[in-house]
Amino acid sequence: MSAPFHFHIEHRTTGLPDWPGRARLGLLTTPHGAIDTPAFIFCATKGAIKGLTPEQVRAAGTQIILGNTYHLMLQPGAERVATHGGLHRMTGWNGPMLTDSGGFQIFSLGHGSVAEEVKGRRNSARPPTLISLDDDGAVFRSYLDGSLHRLTPEESIRIQRALGADIVLVLDECTPYHADRDYTAKSMGMSHRWAQRSLAEFTRGGGMGSGGAQALYGIVQGGIYEDLRRESAEFTRAQPYFGHAVGGCLGGDKAEMHAVVAMVMRPLDDARPVHLLGIGSIEDVWHGAAKGIDSFDCVNPTRLARHGHGYIRPGIEEIENGRDSLNLRNARFRDDRAPLDPECACYTCTTFSRAYLHHLLKADEMLGPQLLSLHNIAFMNRMLGEVRDAIRTDRYADAMRRWVS
Amino acid sequence: MSAPFHFHIEHRTTGLPDWPGRARLGLLTTPHGAIDTPAFIFCATKGAIKGLTPEQVRAAGTQIILGNTYHLMLQPGAERVATHGGLHRMTGWNGPMLTDSGGFQIFSLGHGSVAEEVKGRRNSARPPTLISLDDDGAVFRSYLDGSLHRLTPEESIRIQRALGADIVLVLDECTPYHADRDYTAKSMGMSHRWAQRSLAEFTRGGGMGSGGAQALYGIVQGGIYEDLRRESAEFTRAQPYFGHAVGGCLGGDKAEMHAVVAMVMRPLDDARPVHLLGIGSIEDVWHGAAKGIDSFDCVNPTRLARHGHGYIRPGIEEIENGRDSLNLRNARFRDDRAPLDPECACYTCTTFSRAYLHHLLKADEMLGPQLLSLHNIAFMNRMLGEVRDAIRTDRYADAMRRWVS
Repeated sequence: MSAPFHFHIEHRTTGLPDWPGRARLGLLTTPHGAIDTPAFIFCATKGAIKGLTPEQVRAAGTQIILGNTYHLMLQPGAERVATHGGLHRMTGWNGPMLTDSGGFQIFSLGHGSVAEEVKGRRNSARPPTLISLDDDGAVFRSYLDGSLHRLTPEESIRIQRALGADIVLVLDECTPYHADRDYTAKSMGMSHRWAQRSLAEFTRGGGMGSGGAQALYGIVQGGIYEDLRRESAEFTRAQPYFGHAVGGCLGGDKAEMHAVVAMVMRPLDDARPVHLLGIGSIEDVWHGAAKGIDSFDCVNPTRLARHGHGYIRPGIEEIENGRDSLNLRNARFRDDRAPLDPECACYTCTTFSRAYLHHLLKADEMLGPQLLSLHNIAFMNRMLGEVRDAIRTDRYADAMRRWVS
Repeated sequence: MSAPFHFHIEHRTTGLPDWPGRARLGLLTTPHGAIDTPAFIFCATKGAIKGLTPEQVRAAGTQIILGNTYHLMLQPGAERVATHGGLHRMTGWNGPMLTDSGGFQIFSLGHGSVAEEVKGRRNSARPPTLISLDDDGAVFRSYLDGSLHRLTPEESIRIQRALGADIVLVLDECTPYHADRDYTAKSMGMSHRWAQRSLAEFTRGGGMGSGGAQALYGIVQGGIYEDLRRESAEFTRAQPYFGHAVGGCLGGDKAEMHAVVAMVMRPLDDARPVHLLGIGSIEDVWHGAAKGIDSFDCVNPTRLARHGHGYIRPGIEEIENGRDSLNLRNARFRDDRAPLDPECACYTCTTFSRAYLHHLLKADEMLGPQLLSLHNIAFMNRMLGEVRDAIRTDRYADAMRRWVS
């Protein structure tokens, strides 16, 4: 769309055993640098990766981060960020950056965890902070002070322009898992109208934000309904968005999510980058990339770290409850002098033992979550490197078996 | 004492206007590296500088840190640290390190802040966690779980041997400010006997800890009483400690503290290093170094940071309440795009604005305290560099005027 943006697909898998090979290796160029895809986008929700400096985030191999419009419009406020020269300038992150539209949090906060909501694990009515919702936009209460705010498609784009990220998103309603087909279809229609208004406002502003040129992604809706997903993908493809995103409800379990992703990917434009919103477990990344997803985002690397968890590759050690991480607070690590992840070359794993990490967590030292965040980010970047190598060398199925049981 | 330790005085001030020039520039060599003195020792209370990796601490110019015996004997336990190869190995800090004896916290916890206690701002009886105190040692309750523990001079040395720091301290009773002369004199006598027993246990162990050779410092007691301070200094000087420390009550205000330090320094051995326990404001460092203090320690650089404060040199900007730091939580920094400290070349000051630091603090992002800790440590190291330059170039009084009003 804007000249400084370019998505180049370098290689496509020649075939995967249980899926027509769609995984692709790409290079996504933005005004703040290029991203090797498939990529993991780490969450700097309020303008900071929790517990790490931009220098540490970069040293852990990170190429791109995201900020959340909902949080940033409320604190410190979009105008304040703009007068500061934009998010890149303010946060000290000079690489590629994405912002979401704000809709996700408006419709999810109040239900509890955003991820829980999208993955269908909650069953609740309209969140209590959402005051009204109609074709014009949404009125909601701030999670900080209860003050009333209005978000329309135009306002979301104006805010994202002020924040100045490289990649911005159209406003959409994120439907809950238990929405029925009728609600999902009507919501999809509204999100499509919002998407067109977002695009119009984006175009009116010349695709320029406080951080320079921006690119807009359109979001595919339709919940778990195949015909709606196809209709939404075809609608999105027909608009001149630079990229696509897969949003809305992705089903109630992993199998349903993988099926939803598959039904979306076929009708989309094969030449544009595709982002899968809010998803990013080890398993989900391998399954998603196999279907052609080019980028993922998820709060898990830093959220799990704050809860004392460090990723390791499934299979190299027994992991409790089928998770993809070790709970370093567990007493069994009290005297364990091994590195958290014996396969990892990050600062945490080359410097400290599991016993020390365990001590830091038990002693409530913030260095514990920091060192685990550092590892979890380095781990995820390394894993995405393996995803890309697997595509490049046409050994995706073999590589995936090493990571997904 | 032990062969790998050496204290070389490179230069002494030729004269200070209001004090016979005693400031000295030195090099203190330990098995884990050398320290330029006067030096600031940063507190890794539970085996971690709060919020920073050893790599960041080192990059901020730090040469030496300390761990607290009281905290570490309770969590994770001295034996656990020893089987891990000692504190250096466990924490990833490969430079010089000091541990205190544990006495300070036993006698101070329960009163609230340790610093408040020593500086005489509290007036309370025996702390509730101290169960018994006699010539043999002290029995106290753990601050973690209320369990009973006994600390004797011998046990303190055995614990510090297990922890393995380069510099270790004799066990002493830290008398409160409101202790009268009689109590202070009796306590001093007991601390002297404890010091001799500490030395005997240290010698019995060959001066070796889990981290290698160790050096022992004796502590001067005597409260605010000049004759007691002289007696204690002469006692300490007569024992073969590698270094001296100034402990116990230092008075009720800055003037009294400076007077106590002065009365201690004259009778001490001029060739051995002298550490001032628990003291480290900007003003205190300049006054202490002027009197010949070679090292300081204080939790303030990281504690102030966790409370949202960043050091700046007094005089370059108006500071609230006569403190030596800015409270970045203050709304006046909301749109302030200047660096925290315009004189500072640290990562925080060269990368981020006051407005961003303000935002991080208001948003409860742990990166805020981390970035302020990084600055406060870099600031203190830079200031100690100016102290040393001032001694080297015989311009101490001029330099001190730039820092102390």
